[in-house]
Amino acid sequence: MMRIIMGIDPGLGRTGYGVIQEDGGVLTAIDFGCVLTQVRGPIGARLVELYNDLVELMENYQPDLIVIEDLYFNKNVTTGIQVGEARGVILLASEQLQIPVISFTATQMKNAVTGSGKATKSQVGQMVKRLLKFTVKRAMKDDTTDALALAICGSTIRTK
Amino acid sequence: MMRIIMGIDPGLGRTGYGVIQEDGGVLTAIDFGCVLTQVRGPIGARLVELYNDLVELMENYQPDLIVIEDLYFNKNVTTGIQVGEARGVILLASEQLQIPVISFTATQMKNAVTGSGKATKSQVGQMVKRLLKFTVKRAMKDDTTDALALAICGSTIRTK
Repeated sequence: MMRIIMGIDPGLGRTGYGVIQEDGGVLTAIDFGCVLTQVRGPIGARLVELYNDLVELMENYQPDLIVIEDLYFNKNVTTGIQVGEARGVILLASEQLQIPVISFTATQMKNAVTGSGKATKSQVGQMVKRLLKFTVKRAMKDDTTDALALAICGSTIRTK
Repeated sequence: MMRIIMGIDPGLGRTGYGVIQEDGGVLTAIDFGCVLTQVRGPIGARLVELYNDLVELMENYQPDLIVIEDLYFNKNVTTGIQVGEARGVILLASEQLQIPVISFTATQMKNAVTGSGKATKSQVGQMVKRLLKFTVKRAMKDDTTDALALAICGSTIRTK
């Protein structure tokens, strides 16, 4: 049965998303990119922007499953709080639209896609392009390839 | 001019709220308490519960100002992420209902209410009851007194 899976790499300023189709083990990229919010705006307005854009994407592609990155705060605590706030809004939208959500840590995602939890961003990007059979070279930001990698992880999980 | 101010102490499991009225410098408590979410539920469902309950309170009291606690993660990182997710949902609701929001750290709040940024929870509680002229003894949880204290902080800020 064909399934649509959306991977999301959450952030307040930039949220990567990747929508793939899985049909009998064959993976195809449908859409991917990054939702941006106004850097100088107040936090509430930025969260509404993010929420509205994500709801639009979810309603548009009606994914059967959403895969969102799990958070670990080990570097920048202030950024971490903002990522938590962004993640809360995304989880809210998914639940309101009744789309099942699963989480992977960055390490689990890297391991699933490249075979190593310590893979570099560039290695993740290469494997994503290979697994999705990208024939045209396209520059992609790390949060977009991470989102596609999360969606690929999700394709290995049986739902319903 | 009479103003309604709502203080919020965010959390995934428990969110304290306190609604006060400020009229010519006189403060009166209107409502206060705690919004609980199901401890064993999935995160998305709990965020929807929190969101719905907060929207209901905001629509009910139509505050002129919301005062929410600023986060610092220095103890439990996992709890901190969840508080960030809860805070994101509350900020989203406030913005969607077009209610202005300001933030205070716990230290700023304690300082404003008791004169010391190092006040204990019990000292904050006592000052809150004194400032709001509570004549009846009522047991209040810390997150509820913190929320009322935040609302009192907000009453010192001129808006519009």
